Amino acid sequence: MPKAWQAFLQKYENEALADLIAFLRIPSISALPDHAADVQQAAEWVAKRLEKAGLEKAQVMPTEGHPIVYAEWLHAPGKPTVLIYGHFDTQPVDPLDLWEHPPFEPTIEGDRIYARGATDDKGNMLAPILALEAFLKAEGRLPVNIKCFFEGQEEIGSPHLSPFIEAHKDLLACDLVLSADGGQFSETQPSLTISLRGICSLQIDVTGPAYDLHSGTYGGAVQNPIHALVRLLDSMRHPDGRIAVEGFYDEVMELTPEERAQLAAIPFDEEAYKRELGVEALFGEPGYTPLERTTVRPTLEINGIWGGFQGEGTKTVLPSQAHAKISCRLVPHQTPGRVLESIRQHIAQHTPPGVRVEVHTHEHGTPAYLIPADHPGLQAARDVLKALYGVEPLYTRMGGSVPVCSMFLAHLGVYTVTFAFGLHDERTHSPNEFFRLSSFKRAQEAYGRLLERLAQG
Amino acid sequence: MPKAWQAFLQKYENEALADLIAFLRIPSISALPDHAADVQQAAEWVAKRLEKAGLEKAQVMPTEGHPIVYAEWLHAPGKPTVLIYGHFDTQPVDPLDLWEHPPFEPTIEGDRIYARGATDDKGNMLAPILALEAFLKAEGRLPVNIKCFFEGQEEIGSPHLSPFIEAHKDLLACDLVLSADGGQFSETQPSLTISLRGICSLQIDVTGPAYDLHSGTYGGAVQNPIHALVRLLDSMRHPDGRIAVEGFYDEVMELTPEERAQLAAIPFDEEAYKRELGVEALFGEPGYTPLERTTVRPTLEINGIWGGFQGEGTKTVLPSQAHAKISCRLVPHQTPGRVLESIRQHIAQHTPPGVRVEVHTHEHGTPAYLIPADHPGLQAARDVLKALYGVEPLYTRMGGSVPVCSMFLAHLGVYTVTFAFGLHDERTHSPNEFFRLSSFKRAQEAYGRLLERLAQG
Repeated sequence: MPKAWQAFLQKYENEALADLIAFLRIPSISALPDHAADVQQAAEWVAKRLEKAGLEKAQVMPTEGHPIVYAEWLHAPGKPTVLIYGHFDTQPVDPLDLWEHPPFEPTIEGDRIYARGATDDKGNMLAPILALEAFLKAEGRLPVNIKCFFEGQEEIGSPHLSPFIEAHKDLLACDLVLSADGGQFSETQPSLTISLRGICSLQIDVTGPAYDLHSGTYGGAVQNPIHALVRLLDSMRHPDGRIAVEGFYDEVMELTPEERAQLAAIPFDEEAYKRELGVEALFGEPGYTPLERTTVRPTLEINGIWGGFQGEGTKTVLPSQAHAKISCRLVPHQTPGRVLESIRQHIAQHTPPGVRVEVHTHEHGTPAYLIPADHPGLQAARDVLKALYGVEPLYTRMGGSVPVCSMFLAHLGVYTVTFAFGLHDERTHSPNEFFRLSSFKRAQEAYGRLLERLAQG
Repeated sequence: MPKAWQAFLQKYENEALADLIAFLRIPSISALPDHAADVQQAAEWVAKRLEKAGLEKAQVMPTEGHPIVYAEWLHAPGKPTVLIYGHFDTQPVDPLDLWEHPPFEPTIEGDRIYARGATDDKGNMLAPILALEAFLKAEGRLPVNIKCFFEGQEEIGSPHLSPFIEAHKDLLACDLVLSADGGQFSETQPSLTISLRGICSLQIDVTGPAYDLHSGTYGGAVQNPIHALVRLLDSMRHPDGRIAVEGFYDEVMELTPEERAQLAAIPFDEEAYKRELGVEALFGEPGYTPLERTTVRPTLEINGIWGGFQGEGTKTVLPSQAHAKISCRLVPHQTPGRVLESIRQHIAQHTPPGVRVEVHTHEHGTPAYLIPADHPGLQAARDVLKALYGVEPLYTRMGGSVPVCSMFLAHLGVYTVTFAFGLHDERTHSPNEFFRLSSFKRAQEAYGRLLERLAQG
């Protein structure tokens, strides 16, 4: 016998789908200035939808960039306050010609709804709103206090989010954040993310002669900035993949044998993985499994390199400059500032003769994120997923970085539980992105159950 | 008391300048398809000018690309046959806004005539035509047999020249080539080029995963093609600048102590050189002077490198591919094929795990060129320059490559003496290119004297 909120979700299933379609029709691409008005429109759509759901103080709040939407319902005295996070902006759509349907004309085929933003993150973030509405409309109350916090700049790295959160600490104060941006291990295997890697990045600019030189006339007389850059970059990594920057591993938290066993229990098909990536062999730091290397070990990767002539044929230039971009994925206990400083020192000590090297760091970086395995919010999510899927969720560690988790921890002092229902094959950031309608419904049900579970403490 | 040909040159000085202006007005830019008709027009202008000068069989000959102009005068039995080489095509003119006068509206200021192609090579190649005319008109004969051979694709690397020369061996057969494309050490110090470096080039393409990967999700699992490329390139050179490719130096001709002393006698102001290039220190193979390193030692330079993200800010990509372009300057006795093969072997032996590496060579390369110091043609040029300038010419070795010298040697079995009057400050290939009118006159006089001197054997 379904509860009132569950019956409401069932009854208004078609309306929910219509809402999703309307939401997906807004081309809220945050990276493209031409779409700024669309991001604003998406914010207004979300605020109205929150108001219609019965949330209070629903409002679009400006930032230096794209806006934020806030709403709240705080009438559950003695119950925890939960902040629900998601984002209503999307990635760009190019290459457009690879889309089988126009990216902002949502198309349903079987269990799938195709559109840019379907899984990342409109489908996922609409689900909790619908769950909140079901409680408020069918039962006149929510099990816990709720604050909704949706942003419009996640796909461009949330540049204005941290200062916003810091400036609105009181408004956003809560006991737990639930992030509706993420996914599950598979359709039948639930999972909970317990750690994310941090990140820091820098650009290296190497300058040799004041202008490009003819390599015939001058070749042999002066240091070639590309050779110098290549030498400098090569000095940062041992041939086996270990990072050679002194101090790079100093702060790294080593996993316990139990934690390594937990990781090793996660299904990982190396042959399928290699096939998917099109490589004959995997490669990386010796002594660690591929899953460890991509989740609990730090990396230093060259993301880009350029200098001199890149066209067809030959141009015998000895260029004036060469450049590289590097980013490091960080693991718990590493601090971005110390890692950047150790790289700066390495560069200073290894700069080849005859060139000047400048280092630019774009941002301060984001530390890794780790939620304690016994955190009550995580336990609550575990119980709900276990009941819903019938199997124990995996505790996964993610290789990527979700800066917002670190921001909430830093500014609000609370942990974030990622509670979302995307799946790996849903072409996030790629043409023909889709979301499963079954996941959309499951997400609504899961959020309803989680709110009830969180009310129990 | 001037000779008849000298008096002719003096009398028709203004007409010669008018000819130069008319020649410079033709925008014969060989690199730009839109200017193909202009290159053709320049060829026809040259053929007509040769005919007017009294040369025979003056004709425009087609190639697969831009045409060649040929003419001859072969009525000096028992005398050597000299082929005069030059080119009537020019470099492009961009950046146009840096020109103080329109590049194809020749402008005279004092001793200088400003125009694209003024020194490279229209001014230099018109001079011998005027000298030939002076002999033919004033004396009714030439001191030696002459073949004129002017091309229209020098500035794009003469792609169709070698097969043309090979196919016209009999037509072009001669005892010596004089190249009217080059220059002198200074206005007061003559010089003769005795060697040129050769060249060979290749592109390295490194492929890792089948598509660009997210460096958070996959960083640590697979080889990064940029890291692999950087490692491969770094392995090719020792930190001190010596090339580490096995066999690279095997065929290199070492200079004798006398030859090194000859080179050391050439004025070289290291401080001025560093200031000009904007570097704090020179750099290169230990044990050799900068002048040796740029002229008689081979080099391996990375001319270009690219891979991954090159835009503003950060993009945390682990790219699928990375690329580099390399060229080697070769010295006498090195063969391009063997150098390329040793690099291929080095790459095969040093390819890091986890990536595929492909090597593409664009052309077969050009060997270095070295004319024996006691070559009679070189001695004749030496005598003329010494008499004209009043000082002994320097014997210089050039770091660049002039493939045409190697082509004439390979196909016709004859050496080329570069006999031209450009100077280093005349902005070859740059905005505001100019030629000195005094050099233009000196070149005519010098060619006249050289033809007489060559007739003496």
